[in-house]
Amino acid sequence: MTMERSQPAGLIDHALLAPDATNESVRQAARVAIERGCAGLTLNGSNVKFGSILTKGSAVKVVAVVGGFPLGRTPIAVKAFEAARAVQDGADELDLMINLGAFKECSPDYLLKEVGEVVRAAQGRPVKAILETCYLTDQEKVRAGLLAGQAGAGWVVTSTGYGPGDATVADVALLRSQLPAALQIKAVGDLRTKQRAQALLEAGAARLGVTATAELLDDWAASA
Amino acid sequence: MTMERSQPAGLIDHALLAPDATNESVRQAARVAIERGCAGLTLNGSNVKFGSILTKGSAVKVVAVVGGFPLGRTPIAVKAFEAARAVQDGADELDLMINLGAFKECSPDYLLKEVGEVVRAAQGRPVKAILETCYLTDQEKVRAGLLAGQAGAGWVVTSTGYGPGDATVADVALLRSQLPAALQIKAVGDLRTKQRAQALLEAGAARLGVTATAELLDDWAASA
Repeated sequence: MTMERSQPAGLIDHALLAPDATNESVRQAARVAIERGCAGLTLNGSNVKFGSILTKGSAVKVVAVVGGFPLGRTPIAVKAFEAARAVQDGADELDLMINLGAFKECSPDYLLKEVGEVVRAAQGRPVKAILETCYLTDQEKVRAGLLAGQAGAGWVVTSTGYGPGDATVADVALLRSQLPAALQIKAVGDLRTKQRAQALLEAGAARLGVTATAELLDDWAASA
Repeated sequence: MTMERSQPAGLIDHALLAPDATNESVRQAARVAIERGCAGLTLNGSNVKFGSILTKGSAVKVVAVVGGFPLGRTPIAVKAFEAARAVQDGADELDLMINLGAFKECSPDYLLKEVGEVVRAAQGRPVKAILETCYLTDQEKVRAGLLAGQAGAGWVVTSTGYGPGDATVADVALLRSQLPAALQIKAVGDLRTKQRAQALLEAGAARLGVTATAELLDDWAASA
């Protein structure tokens, strides 16, 4: 087991993406991310400004979901505008939901353009392209990941957490074996146990997107 | 039974909002909406331009979901930009997901501003404010509806279809009894039977948002 794997919190983006989240929920989520030592705090766009104030001075990165999350079906110009606004509001990283339908039309140009425009709007900040693997064939997962990397994304993300399926060990292993090493993988799911989280890390995930972070870390500590 | 209620298709916005919808799915959805005589065809932003080409010359209105649908958690400036783009792409009506968290902070100003800015971007086209009632108390449902109307929305919509709860007869009846008569109600849910659809219409819904439109209309015809 590597050093990182014995420090699981540093591999977690703690997520608060509920439609009815209040400022108090954002405050609590920021507290969890800071106190537990998470890598990032994933928020919806309208909470990014507040989240960046709350995490100021800590090592926690503010991760904004963009791209018409979780459906990914807004026009590219809207995605670019949304990304630029998230950067302006203090986002350190952008998790971008891609347009699955346009990608499935077998048009590589569309995915290259949408990821490319968000990468430009991110001005050097890491962009993680969410593939929502539950909707894709194995071939599509790999092809979408390769295109996202080609367009400048530094990461691929398995899932939104809102789709009919979460990250699977098989998907992470597939992506890890087929994508360039420089392209990192974030696995997102309803992770609550060390067993499941560790399986995803061992399959090749470099980051975990988690909502029940305290529960997962408590289970991890208890079973250490 | 009124005239409209004997012609159910004209009360339906046929919806295609799947994240993996292809151009062929949009084509099929437009065909259903036109052939069945639906009031509208509800689409995600990235499909509005194609949808408006497909429905040209028919009576079917293109309804764009906006506002960071279905979570509603993008900044107001992003919602306004998205709405303006939908109008530019040919949308006839806008179904706007409101920011539930900001509303629950008890700040009426936020909801007034977000609905108001989208109404302005809509340039006279009807705006329907989605309340996602499953997250709200009865008092909140009514208050949000009143504020949306005050800000210029012509309609309130019960649900996105993506939340943990759909339109209920009780919610429609509550809104109908408490909101001004000029503010119309659209009920959204997984409606597949005449019985359920009719109950929502009788409770006061003037429009139904439906995905399984052909199934519902076939059931309606069979049980006429």
